[in-house]
Amino acid sequence: MSAATVAGKVRSAPEIRRDPVTGRWVIISTDRARHPQDFIREPVRPRGVTVCPFCAGNEDRTPPEILSYRPNGHGWGLRVISNKFPALRVEGDLGRTGDGLYDRMNGIGAHELIIETPDHRLSLAELGSKQVEDLFWAFRDRVLDLRRDSRIRYILLFKNHGEAAGGMIEHTHSQLMGLPVVPIAVQEELDGARRHYEYKERCIYCDVLRQDLEDGSRIVLESDYVVAIQPYAARFPFETWLMPRAHVSHFENSDAAVIANMAWALQTTVQRLERVLEFPAYNMVLHSSPVQEAALPWYHWHLEIIPRLTRVAGFEWGTGFHINPTPPEEAARFLRDASI
Amino acid sequence: MSAATVAGKVRSAPEIRRDPVTGRWVIISTDRARHPQDFIREPVRPRGVTVCPFCAGNEDRTPPEILSYRPNGHGWGLRVISNKFPALRVEGDLGRTGDGLYDRMNGIGAHELIIETPDHRLSLAELGSKQVEDLFWAFRDRVLDLRRDSRIRYILLFKNHGEAAGGMIEHTHSQLMGLPVVPIAVQEELDGARRHYEYKERCIYCDVLRQDLEDGSRIVLESDYVVAIQPYAARFPFETWLMPRAHVSHFENSDAAVIANMAWALQTTVQRLERVLEFPAYNMVLHSSPVQEAALPWYHWHLEIIPRLTRVAGFEWGTGFHINPTPPEEAARFLRDASI
Repeated sequence: MSAATVAGKVRSAPEIRRDPVTGRWVIISTDRARHPQDFIREPVRPRGVTVCPFCAGNEDRTPPEILSYRPNGHGWGLRVISNKFPALRVEGDLGRTGDGLYDRMNGIGAHELIIETPDHRLSLAELGSKQVEDLFWAFRDRVLDLRRDSRIRYILLFKNHGEAAGGMIEHTHSQLMGLPVVPIAVQEELDGARRHYEYKERCIYCDVLRQDLEDGSRIVLESDYVVAIQPYAARFPFETWLMPRAHVSHFENSDAAVIANMAWALQTTVQRLERVLEFPAYNMVLHSSPVQEAALPWYHWHLEIIPRLTRVAGFEWGTGFHINPTPPEEAARFLRDASI
Repeated sequence: MSAATVAGKVRSAPEIRRDPVTGRWVIISTDRARHPQDFIREPVRPRGVTVCPFCAGNEDRTPPEILSYRPNGHGWGLRVISNKFPALRVEGDLGRTGDGLYDRMNGIGAHELIIETPDHRLSLAELGSKQVEDLFWAFRDRVLDLRRDSRIRYILLFKNHGEAAGGMIEHTHSQLMGLPVVPIAVQEELDGARRHYEYKERCIYCDVLRQDLEDGSRIVLESDYVVAIQPYAARFPFETWLMPRAHVSHFENSDAAVIANMAWALQTTVQRLERVLEFPAYNMVLHSSPVQEAALPWYHWHLEIIPRLTRVAGFEWGTGFHINPTPPEEAARFLRDASI
């Protein structure tokens, strides 16, 4: 197969490839920046001149709406749209094929954006509490819809806030990717949690919560249904996990009280991080069970929030080897003591 | 255990902690930036005014020299020193302890810097070919010395070039970390490669080389002893792997011809990346077998070079889920066509 043939083939649609050694899947996308010159400099965007397609009144500048909430009866409060430049597409079949050692499939899946407010000026920390709760209801509504497509094995819900975290659009929004594979870091968690369960017949996350609540030193905040901790082996300074107290493997099976508490905990945690770290870029990733699986006694859904601070060596992300300069007990103390 | 006790304990020495779910080890370091204000802004360094401790004539400003090469008989050409702010320390014992669910050990190990030239103005791409070769000889000399310490299980050899890649010192240098654990990404490679070997009785990297050389579309350059490829499931645009043609599991067991060829391939690859991507920041990581293990028939040492380009979402490094906008076949073509 010549280079031209391969290049021609992948240009037509995104492709998912498997690393033959580790089993890690990667989306090879062609709708985004591709040529060397695209990487060289960030374009200087004339801020204030460009029209934001996520603002109220500009709805015709986005792909068609998938879902919206209109809490006041007039005008939307939250809106879900397809990504204009999706990394994955719903149309077509998986087309799993091998090529000698290598495995690939077509880039089938969903890539949606959840616009959290029509107001460009607000950040997640500044939204009304009902609006943050609606973000989780939108996550849930979209998961319940998309999981009916049996090709979709995992649904990644996340937010990139700020350029250092990969956030390219200023207007506050989250993202959904429905994937035909389970991301490797999630699979490692599932495998590790299952090993613990097979040995002890207990959920390891429930065990972590029990031990950390008793110890107290890594707790950031708690409510009736949710606890925020700095994990014992935090990879990054101020890495924060928000965990439902009660065992639930799938986010979408949580009840209203947990969702309301999680929304409160997320907003409060972000407010504390913004206070202590002066408005850092951050990533939020919801870790949940594969959507086609029944309830799992060993996995416990949770949210991970990772501020993207300077001075973290790039190689750490490539080796899985991390040096964290802030003991999680100290980070927890700073966050507990923050006045918001 | 109170927060103060824990904080007090970790302040005294670096600590290595294990994530109970995934088994990932993390260094919790306290010699580096720790308080929130340390993360908030990069200090503006008055360039040109500060004295570079890595330049010739300033040897008394660094920790004691571990090794140096003096190819001309007068003045050093390459110099190895301890890191002034080590993430790990050689003194003490491992002190493996458990605390309920959690496992920890003391941050025992080595953290050394290899200063590649006395000349501040040169980058790796501009060094003499013998100087690049000497970098690999220094890697080898240090590995042969450190592996005599049975506490050291893995030796990570790497280079962070440019601030976006975590390089904080301008003067060109590489780093060595002798670790009491194997980094998780390396362990996954070892496990995956062993599974392939158990099934097929062949090294998977040898198989990759054979298939990619026949296909040709992902080859960047080749010499008698080394081949540079864009991997089939590249996580990052222009991610490049340099592999010895012949099977060797441990870098330090390579012979002089392989080392000379690898030095040439590294410098040529970096020159091509700098030409095509206009001097990107990059990480180079040498993947080799754990130093206390005998020769492995399933693992094949290699170098991975990852340019740190803009617009890569931060969440990808946290989930192990990557979207690569440049098909490796196209990246290989750009690098092959670059005139250097």
